[in-house]
Amino acid sequence: MSRTEVKDYGEFGLIHHLTKNIELQNASSVLGVGDDAAVIDHFGKQTVVSTDMLIEGVHFDLSYTPLKHLGYKSVIVNLSDIYAMNATPTQILLSVGFSSRFSVEAIEEFYEGVYAACEEHGVDLIGGDTSSSQKGFIISITAIGEATPEQIVKRSTAQKGDLICVSGDLGGAYIGLLFLEREKRIYLESPGVQPDLENETYVIGRLLKPNARKDIHELLEEKGIIPTSMMDISDGLSSELLHICENSAVGCVIYEEKLPVSEESRKAAYKFEIDPTACALSGGEDYELLFTIKQEDYEKVTLNEKISVIGYVTEAGEGAKIKTKGGNTYNITAQGWNAFKEG
Amino acid sequence: MSRTEVKDYGEFGLIHHLTKNIELQNASSVLGVGDDAAVIDHFGKQTVVSTDMLIEGVHFDLSYTPLKHLGYKSVIVNLSDIYAMNATPTQILLSVGFSSRFSVEAIEEFYEGVYAACEEHGVDLIGGDTSSSQKGFIISITAIGEATPEQIVKRSTAQKGDLICVSGDLGGAYIGLLFLEREKRIYLESPGVQPDLENETYVIGRLLKPNARKDIHELLEEKGIIPTSMMDISDGLSSELLHICENSAVGCVIYEEKLPVSEESRKAAYKFEIDPTACALSGGEDYELLFTIKQEDYEKVTLNEKISVIGYVTEAGEGAKIKTKGGNTYNITAQGWNAFKEG
Repeated sequence: MSRTEVKDYGEFGLIHHLTKNIELQNASSVLGVGDDAAVIDHFGKQTVVSTDMLIEGVHFDLSYTPLKHLGYKSVIVNLSDIYAMNATPTQILLSVGFSSRFSVEAIEEFYEGVYAACEEHGVDLIGGDTSSSQKGFIISITAIGEATPEQIVKRSTAQKGDLICVSGDLGGAYIGLLFLEREKRIYLESPGVQPDLENETYVIGRLLKPNARKDIHELLEEKGIIPTSMMDISDGLSSELLHICENSAVGCVIYEEKLPVSEESRKAAYKFEIDPTACALSGGEDYELLFTIKQEDYEKVTLNEKISVIGYVTEAGEGAKIKTKGGNTYNITAQGWNAFKEG
Repeated sequence: MSRTEVKDYGEFGLIHHLTKNIELQNASSVLGVGDDAAVIDHFGKQTVVSTDMLIEGVHFDLSYTPLKHLGYKSVIVNLSDIYAMNATPTQILLSVGFSSRFSVEAIEEFYEGVYAACEEHGVDLIGGDTSSSQKGFIISITAIGEATPEQIVKRSTAQKGDLICVSGDLGGAYIGLLFLEREKRIYLESPGVQPDLENETYVIGRLLKPNARKDIHELLEEKGIIPTSMMDISDGLSSELLHICENSAVGCVIYEEKLPVSEESRKAAYKFEIDPTACALSGGEDYELLFTIKQEDYEKVTLNEKISVIGYVTEAGEGAKIKTKGGNTYNITAQGWNAFKEG
């Protein structure tokens, strides 16, 4: 494969090269890449905007993350925040910084993943920045979405008696990470050994190619459900539940037996001799939606296999609790991924 | 001075600590920091959005950049892009990544500068992200602004016969950089020597504490002038002029004698035995506005000391030219700062 140095293009040349084929999909994208700023038009709708920074060695490890997957996931992570507001993502801005270790072909691969995610979600890339870095790959994405004022769902509006729901299944991405970290260690110790990941495609896919739950956003709209609170699960269910409880000034009870864990994740967790429930509670990066609904909406979600009702909202004084299969009750504590505490 | 470790706060604690005093200033800022995304409301206005990434060792050198100035400038650089669209900045999102080398106090200082710039420009900080980095300080800012569709000015709409204008004066920031780089070298060679920058406060101020030209944006509106094209000067006048010519499919002629260079910059340039005109053409980071106006608007700007008319727009075939004081004509070539070419 040929290797083109970034300096052969120069900064402006590279941006042009990477963005020249963009066709804007949203009527609200009035002006895209190529000027000082992009222009978005909204009439009577509210703009929802979120930003995330991803840094090599902190948020991802390129030794087992293909660049195309990284590009895809970087976008997904941001779109997930927009869906978590019950809004529809419409545009992103993307800044990347990278050292001379990366060729133009490598950057193109990254962008391929970015464009794949954009296309899947009907989102326009409308601006950004490329830059050199002293070390490693740095990504910053701002995602923009729209919603009517009535549609927008915050973290701070859960009420006592509401039902707590999660989409999809939990813990898989964390177990995928454990596998990849193990294979990396084996590879570093004995580079000749081939990785044995064949049976773990599900959990590894959960880590490397997560979904942003566009389908759940659409399903809620279709069913006429506006959640009373919502957020996406990036740091782990426990951590996010505590956010909702704190922001809404409520408590909660969830049931271990109701936590959705896939069969693949369960089996994979046992290979590492860890508890699948712990993975579901504390494993991050699943990018599922956590939301609360009024009791009267129970019928509308209960038959949907994509949504699990895992508990209910209580008064603040009752704290945040989990009832285990064995009948015990424990306080929920945040053990989500915290980049600073690991350092 | 006390030193608090970032890990003592944790990520969420730190964000809360740094943003707890924000009071939203714009009616359009419906929801700020603290949820998955911020919410901006616009009725009949267009949203303008721009993003920039700044990386330690590439875009700034902390050995001579106080963190408060860095915070201030990071915001200014982004607001400048919004003014360059002839729009009014209203919100920013800020992501920062930093290694454990930085204490909470250091991050607070950075945020002080961020808030100072926000306050000066009536802009709300509505979201962002903090993260650890493996190395150095990384900043990514997205700025959002608004304008009516008629107000927005692009790079691609200059027309033959238009007058070319710049605000303020040019080259100062580059000369400021030369001084600071020289003092850094001296310091590294003989740490005992005190820096001698007393007479260079103007050019150093131009580098460390640039303006975003809110006043020019307001002046243009007051005078009823909508530029035919506009951009801000971040890479150097030559580079930006070529962008306008290329995007608008026009040529241009500018006059060396019309280029605005401050007396302080001129004197300082001669100390380095470099040509002040070269600094004005190729020195970056002045964050002045470059814009074109219709000839009929000449009277409206000509008596304003903040604006210089430096030339006019020609046909594309005539290229981009500069007429020197000596009567010669040269092609304008881009020698703006290009992070990749230096690498």
